Amino acid sequence: MTQMKAIVKTETSFGASLKRVPVPTPGPGEVLVKIMATAICGTDVHVYEWNKWAQGAVKSLPRVMGHEFSGEVLELGEGVKNLIKGDRVAGETHIPCGKCYQCKNGLQHICANMVLFSIDSDGCFAQYTVIPEICARKIPEDIPWEHGAMMEPLGTSVRAAQEVVPAGANAAVIGAGPIGLGAVTALKALGAARIIVSDISDDRLSIAAEVGATHLLNPLKEDVTAKVMEITSGVGTDSFIDASGSVRAISEGFRYLRKGGRVALVGLPSEPISLELGPQVIFKEAKIIGIHGRKMFETWTVMENLMAGGLLELDPIVSHILPLEDFEKGFSLLKEGKGCKIILDPWQEGQLPTLQE
Amino acid sequence: MTQMKAIVKTETSFGASLKRVPVPTPGPGEVLVKIMATAICGTDVHVYEWNKWAQGAVKSLPRVMGHEFSGEVLELGEGVKNLIKGDRVAGETHIPCGKCYQCKNGLQHICANMVLFSIDSDGCFAQYTVIPEICARKIPEDIPWEHGAMMEPLGTSVRAAQEVVPAGANAAVIGAGPIGLGAVTALKALGAARIIVSDISDDRLSIAAEVGATHLLNPLKEDVTAKVMEITSGVGTDSFIDASGSVRAISEGFRYLRKGGRVALVGLPSEPISLELGPQVIFKEAKIIGIHGRKMFETWTVMENLMAGGLLELDPIVSHILPLEDFEKGFSLLKEGKGCKIILDPWQEGQLPTLQE
Amino acid sequence: MTQMKAIVKTETSFGASLKRVPVPTPGPGEVLVKIMATAICGTDVHVYEWNKWAQGAVKSLPRVMGHEFSGEVLELGEGVKNLIKGDRVAGETHIPCGKCYQCKNGLQHICANMVLFSIDSDGCFAQYTVIPEICARKIPEDIPWEHGAMMEPLGTSVRAAQEVVPAGANAAVIGAGPIGLGAVTALKALGAARIIVSDISDDRLSIAAEVGATHLLNPLKEDVTAKVMEITSGVGTDSFIDASGSVRAISEGFRYLRKGGRVALVGLPSEPISLELGPQVIFKEAKIIGIHGRKMFETWTVMENLMAGGLLELDPIVSHILPLEDFEKGFSLLKEGKGCKIILDPWQEGQLPTLQE
Amino acid sequence: MTQMKAIVKTETSFGASLKRVPVPTPGPGEVLVKIMATAICGTDVHVYEWNKWAQGAVKSLPRVMGHEFSGEVLELGEGVKNLIKGDRVAGETHIPCGKCYQCKNGLQHICANMVLFSIDSDGCFAQYTVIPEICARKIPEDIPWEHGAMMEPLGTSVRAAQEVVPAGANAAVIGAGPIGLGAVTALKALGAARIIVSDISDDRLSIAAEVGATHLLNPLKEDVTAKVMEITSGVGTDSFIDASGSVRAISEGFRYLRKGGRVALVGLPSEPISLELGPQVIFKEAKIIGIHGRKMFETWTVMENLMAGGLLELDPIVSHILPLEDFEKGFSLLKEGKGCKIILDPWQEGQLPTLQE
Repeated sequence: MTQMKAIVKTETSFGASLKRVPVPTPGPGEVLVKIMATAICGTDVHVYEWNKWAQGAVKSLPRVMGHEFSGEVLELGEGVKNLIKGDRVAGETHIPCGKCYQCKNGLQHICANMVLFSIDSDGCFAQYTVIPEICARKIPEDIPWEHGAMMEPLGTSVRAAQEVVPAGANAAVIGAGPIGLGAVTALKALGAARIIVSDISDDRLSIAAEVGATHLLNPLKEDVTAKVMEITSGVGTDSFIDASGSVRAISEGFRYLRKGGRVALVGLPSEPISLELGPQVIFKEAKIIGIHGRKMFETWTVMENLMAGGLLELDPIVSHILPLEDFEKGFSLLKEGKGCKIILDPWQEGQLPTLQE
Repeated sequence: MTQMKAIVKTETSFGASLKRVPVPTPGPGEVLVKIMATAICGTDVHVYEWNKWAQGAVKSLPRVMGHEFSGEVLELGEGVKNLIKGDRVAGETHIPCGKCYQCKNGLQHICANMVLFSIDSDGCFAQYTVIPEICARKIPEDIPWEHGAMMEPLGTSVRAAQEVVPAGANAAVIGAGPIGLGAVTALKALGAARIIVSDISDDRLSIAAEVGATHLLNPLKEDVTAKVMEITSGVGTDSFIDASGSVRAISEGFRYLRKGGRVALVGLPSEPISLELGPQVIFKEAKIIGIHGRKMFETWTVMENLMAGGLLELDPIVSHILPLEDFEKGFSLLKEGKGCKIILDPWQEGQLPTLQE
Repeated sequence: MTQMKAIVKTETSFGASLKRVPVPTPGPGEVLVKIMATAICGTDVHVYEWNKWAQGAVKSLPRVMGHEFSGEVLELGEGVKNLIKGDRVAGETHIPCGKCYQCKNGLQHICANMVLFSIDSDGCFAQYTVIPEICARKIPEDIPWEHGAMMEPLGTSVRAAQEVVPAGANAAVIGAGPIGLGAVTALKALGAARIIVSDISDDRLSIAAEVGATHLLNPLKEDVTAKVMEITSGVGTDSFIDASGSVRAISEGFRYLRKGGRVALVGLPSEPISLELGPQVIFKEAKIIGIHGRKMFETWTVMENLMAGGLLELDPIVSHILPLEDFEKGFSLLKEGKGCKIILDPWQEGQLPTLQE
Repeated sequence: MTQMKAIVKTETSFGASLKRVPVPTPGPGEVLVKIMATAICGTDVHVYEWNKWAQGAVKSLPRVMGHEFSGEVLELGEGVKNLIKGDRVAGETHIPCGKCYQCKNGLQHICANMVLFSIDSDGCFAQYTVIPEICARKIPEDIPWEHGAMMEPLGTSVRAAQEVVPAGANAAVIGAGPIGLGAVTALKALGAARIIVSDISDDRLSIAAEVGATHLLNPLKEDVTAKVMEITSGVGTDSFIDASGSVRAISEGFRYLRKGGRVALVGLPSEPISLELGPQVIFKEAKIIGIHGRKMFETWTVMENLMAGGLLELDPIVSHILPLEDFEKGFSLLKEGKGCKIILDPWQEGQLPTLQE
């Protein structure tokens, strides 16, 4: 075991390559993990397509891509204390410095000097990866590998759902991609009464219905605000979670939000948003929170308990499980809007592209 | 419509009488309600049996008993603005003064000068009742009358469940009477992962299982603390809700509660509790809250939304629906531990006791 | 006592007139108040100048202007229960409907059908005014009239200070007008450790220093963000309160706010704000709240206690006490940036303009 | 530097000895600290007197006593990353395991496997001590050593003050020892309007007045509840903090607490408390929290900011600064109730007792 398959970003242009590279060695405080499942995220698409954000964020190449994974601890670096070989783990991708104001004040998930797994270090679209001990979260036995690989994005969804005070509430979710769908199933699990989901894809809306949405709205076909006001008897929603990054949809959310409502912003817009703070925020006394990740590790604890209780619907969110070799197909499916959460399996051989040494 | 049937406490001793009494007239700010369903609560049993608490609390007789009800608004007293004839309502039994510190600071449900419906005024074990407008909560069309009559105690359960932060948590409920069972179904609706219920009655435990309990413990048969620690992998529960009023069980709860856990106290002990504050509260940093009622009306809003979403299991909690005339049977069933929530219907004639004028 | 002096907006153009008008009569649930002090707010300036906002908001003329006041209860309308003649009161200007979702859920201060005192009803730049009982807040004996007249805007400041979690924090306040200065003294009273105030007027900054600011920044003279980062050792502020309504300054606030920080927005921008949600809100996990008024009446209680304890510095915020007759001078002073909080006294005669009948 | 002076508990009986012992060596992740000031706490008195609690808690002898300290980092053990030689530090005495449920969920200060500095390891009544890096809190330059040595207990006080929501509130503090006095000055800093302190020692009450108490009550001389009700206009206090451990006084606190009030329990009673949960907790909807330490390190951050802003009055709490050699005098002063916070200085020679090798 000295070489492994990995999807590597080598060029400052579109695409990536399946290559044979050395298995990494865990340094002090790190562990080597055998990847059992890994999932493609929107961020990976940015890196793959080498868009403007990726050009700014990825400082050096080559870089093994991918950050969502589950796997088994194979080797312990020096000084590792809290894990043993054979532990099943999922990856927390925010690697905290342990020294900054945030790390010292219960906010290590938004560390001021955060190292992003797969952006600032090699990632997990591979057969093995190395990650700091603190970011290898031990997960319960009964969580299947593909669910384990989804926990990183799902944790963001769970946290967003918690922050908007879901109990008995009428909530809206904008965008029915994996984050939005995770928010839907989390809202349902946490007692939201009405869950209104908007998306421009009817296919995604139908998945939303499977995981808990009570009302589906397609802004291409109907007036979302008018419908929301009807569903909520003219009051507006108690909250909305944005998982679309669409500035137009977010701005609309601030219109159908009720006075005193809550907002969790997760999706990253590619352009500035224009808001009229008076009517959209101040007169409403809107409470808004930006969500950048999972609390380490309160969110993981809640998520695992919900999963253990069978309270989250995850299978409908998985659209494909592909061999690692089929990564280009995976990226294409996402680009065409045909995929939802796509899992890559590094041990199942697929339609093999030629391996580059 | 000048006379009505009512269960009246007339004597300072055990029991009550079914009597024919005048239909009351709503004063300014009050409404007359036609009772469609009314339910027996533990407090009613105290008054019926005329125990020590009742002797202190009920200041004058005769008094129409009963405080849990749903019904239809029939007449409006002078100055009533927020209700119209025909509105379907449930009774909020905490009648606030509107002037005290609590009423002026968002805490009218624990008004310093609170008038208790049926203790300080005539109640609702009758065909009609009068209640201040503010305490006649309009309820949605699709809530059946018998569920409406359960909302007052259920609101206490829902609030307790909210206060212990149920999301993804491992919670314990002590006591599987109507309040405890309401807490179980509320905890389940709000995303508790494991719901451990303890009660000395296997019958009640089996109802708990129907409404959402994941683990059932009978302290007569097993070591509750040992079992709880096993279920929670040695951590202890994230919270417990006491709905038993048993000082022994509450004290035990403070032992299996995890460090940093939360406690909601609802059940009223008949004797002082003895606590070792060091190990049971301080070293644990337990967070304890006493619950005396429903927030007016945030709790009602949440409860109605949960009911509208079909998220609460209420039918298993109703053990009997009896005609008003059978009230003595109702009290006997409760006394014998054979009943759970018993609904009285003032319009369905039963085995008629002789009516006293 | 049938006629009184009042400043009346009569024309749909710049200005207002001092007129003799009938003393109003309190309707059911209302009280007649003898005005002892009244203060000019930015909103009054909008109405006076008849800007675009005022043209949309003020539905009918003539209208007695002014909404900030203190005074004495002179007469009770029918059904008034919680006040007696002679009570000293200050005005809460958000008149709630009592029926809407917000009123029923502890949020009457942002009532969906809110009537704004002086916009939707006659105001208090007069010798007498009429206001609903619920909005006449009884105030302690030892609060001087001019402080009483400042409580409405001050309550907004106190609330903003509370919402940003001031204890031991490094807070910024943008804008040193009356609201901003109120926020400064409130932050100081509530334990903020460093209070950084920015304003383009050095005069206002010097008042900020008198009421508790620890650091003063003039954006015309220095790089605010650079200075803030220096003061906070590179961390950024724990929070900022905007009381300027300047979209440029708010946007800058989102840059010097630390990760995990809090924002209270009070000032009303006259144009849309453009925000980059990723870096300014989401990666920061900023927590933002819009503030539109005082909680009724939790905020009043806190404010009165702080005032009773001598914990708020209010006198430096009062720049002028003028007779009602000098209202034009008052508006001019504000327009020229020479005034801060200007109090009008309806019983002290000044340079009398000719009274219009 | 191989030997140092230290106060050592050697015998399972009353007392301790000043001895010459080896300077300890920091292990991996630990630092050696030169003690500049150390303070005597009630827990040290228990160990000194070898009471029942101490007999159970201290597992092995000999043991260097003392846990409150400030000092300078002299040597770094292997792998220490966040400190350098010369750093000024104060000691956090809760040494977390890093693995338990609490440590993984933001509650390391109440770690399930907590090692208590000076109970489970050697302490700091000495010229040098060794402590894990995580528990050596770097403190600002301008904090004098004797204040640094008080930060551990003061942090408990600050946290208690924060937990009872002090802003604009009427708070009571039971017990005017160092913890209670710290709570008084913290309450004042955080905006409590009225601070009522009760203690049986008039001397201590007079210190309370110096650090911010607005009302002083001696239960030996007056009816505390009656006075509290008078001070609070019949409402009761918004909160109370117990720093006495007196079950009688705590029980009384639950009587003068207003409905909806908050309680922070810090003092450790030596006997069980008897509470009537109905009237004392449930009907009041009291919110109670046990406080066992400082949040790591949010509380430290707040405390340091408050100290930096000059917002805490600490000097009146220090009654004596003695040479380490005079420790017996220190314990005697505390026993006789003549001392408040007593600082020991290990570098200033006093009336030397004979050193034992």
